[in-house]
Amino acid sequence: MTAPELSFNQATARDWPMLDLIAGCVTAGVRYVGLWREQVTEFGLEQTAKAVRAADLGVTSLCRGGFFNEPGWEISNRRAIDEAAALEAPVLVLVSGGLPSGSRDIAAARAHVAEAVAELVPYARSAGVTLAIEPLHPMFAADRCVISTLAQALDIAEAHPVDAVGVVVDTYHVWWDDQVYAQIARAGSRIASFQLADWSTPLPAGVLTGRSLPGDGCVDIVSLWRAVLATGYDDPVEIEIFNDELWALPGAEVLRRTLAAWSAVTAALR
Amino acid sequence: MTAPELSFNQATARDWPMLDLIAGCVTAGVRYVGLWREQVTEFGLEQTAKAVRAADLGVTSLCRGGFFNEPGWEISNRRAIDEAAALEAPVLVLVSGGLPSGSRDIAAARAHVAEAVAELVPYARSAGVTLAIEPLHPMFAADRCVISTLAQALDIAEAHPVDAVGVVVDTYHVWWDDQVYAQIARAGSRIASFQLADWSTPLPAGVLTGRSLPGDGCVDIVSLWRAVLATGYDDPVEIEIFNDELWALPGAEVLRRTLAAWSAVTAALR
Repeated sequence: MTAPELSFNQATARDWPMLDLIAGCVTAGVRYVGLWREQVTEFGLEQTAKAVRAADLGVTSLCRGGFFNEPGWEISNRRAIDEAAALEAPVLVLVSGGLPSGSRDIAAARAHVAEAVAELVPYARSAGVTLAIEPLHPMFAADRCVISTLAQALDIAEAHPVDAVGVVVDTYHVWWDDQVYAQIARAGSRIASFQLADWSTPLPAGVLTGRSLPGDGCVDIVSLWRAVLATGYDDPVEIEIFNDELWALPGAEVLRRTLAAWSAVTAALR
Repeated sequence: MTAPELSFNQATARDWPMLDLIAGCVTAGVRYVGLWREQVTEFGLEQTAKAVRAADLGVTSLCRGGFFNEPGWEISNRRAIDEAAALEAPVLVLVSGGLPSGSRDIAAARAHVAEAVAELVPYARSAGVTLAIEPLHPMFAADRCVISTLAQALDIAEAHPVDAVGVVVDTYHVWWDDQVYAQIARAGSRIASFQLADWSTPLPAGVLTGRSLPGDGCVDIVSLWRAVLATGYDDPVEIEIFNDELWALPGAEVLRRTLAAWSAVTAALR
């Protein structure tokens, strides 16, 4: 197999200024980044696009569209698609959003996600951006993402051409699922992004920032990665970690630790 | 249908002394309690058994056996079965435990739970105690319970007679699962205990104490309850809430709030 390449997702070093992040990746020999809309907006869309191009960095994905439970999702998602296109990011990650305010009807919320994705497909295709549905761990079902399993994401994606709608497989969100290996095989070329993060306990308040670098937790990342490789996936692999301890460190140190984790897990992969 | 009866699980008022809890339930007209081994041991097994019998309270379940990832699980689970029998509790709740220390093999951990349950069945049957496998929300898969779905619990339970091994359906743990209604129907008379708790966000650190009284969160408890009733379930229904705010209140106030939540949700059930 071709050696997998790392894409450093900027959320891992959340507060690293954009130009420092870009320079740091170039220095470290990292050729791909995953970007976030908040940081891109803060630095400026055109400026970001220009800077990554000048540095010859590929943008593997833009995070994130979705949140279809919020008013105005149509406009905000079209804007996200435009931003992905401007950054030449082939993939826009969609996090569906949780239950609408006051609702207890999760089945209806899930059905609405399918409708919303279908509505966005023509716009995304004309922009050349693949919509990638990310299932989040079920602990986020209420307030962040009603799409809780890879099977649910695929049920929605499969209504569309493979280059129009794919899925994100993030080891942090799917490792507990006894169907995950079958669903990775089912996904095949629908895997638009593969992301590594590990599960550590105890979870912090709010649970968002509990994930850890590959190797620091209990997820069998190597087995999941092998299953993804078996589908023919050969795009760069993102490391995206929300972790308060990492966020407190200088960006270059976060990248250094990320590369160390990457080396260890890719060595185990062979 | 017969009006459902409440069983007050003592974890909801964790620090209420045993005799006060028993007296409080009698005063409030509550005829059933769910008990915990820690509290029973602290007050004394024989004393507890005597006190609940004297108060004419039924013990619907004893929490908990399981934790099959820990050394000595055979002895501690036999002891738990003895305690359930002494309390005339028909059901011992099993929480499987998480991954063994240092392990990343969740499939092996799940297979071990099936073996451990099988090993306990003869002892439990001779004691007249039903082992009830409780799936916990997947956010507990690493450190508390590798059995994450009702389907997994049923896969294990169905290898045994229905009076030997059943399942616990706790609305808090299963509400997110798109298979839950199908699995409740599949469970049929295997539902050895039905418990109500609601899901509120944000989750607190450690996530154990995030649940709330029925009606205070986003779980469609009424629909889940109707599905359980459709299986023919007519045992008392437990309310079991781990919540720091409730634990800070006097036990009688916790019971008062529990009864108010119970009235509201049973009214919606009709």
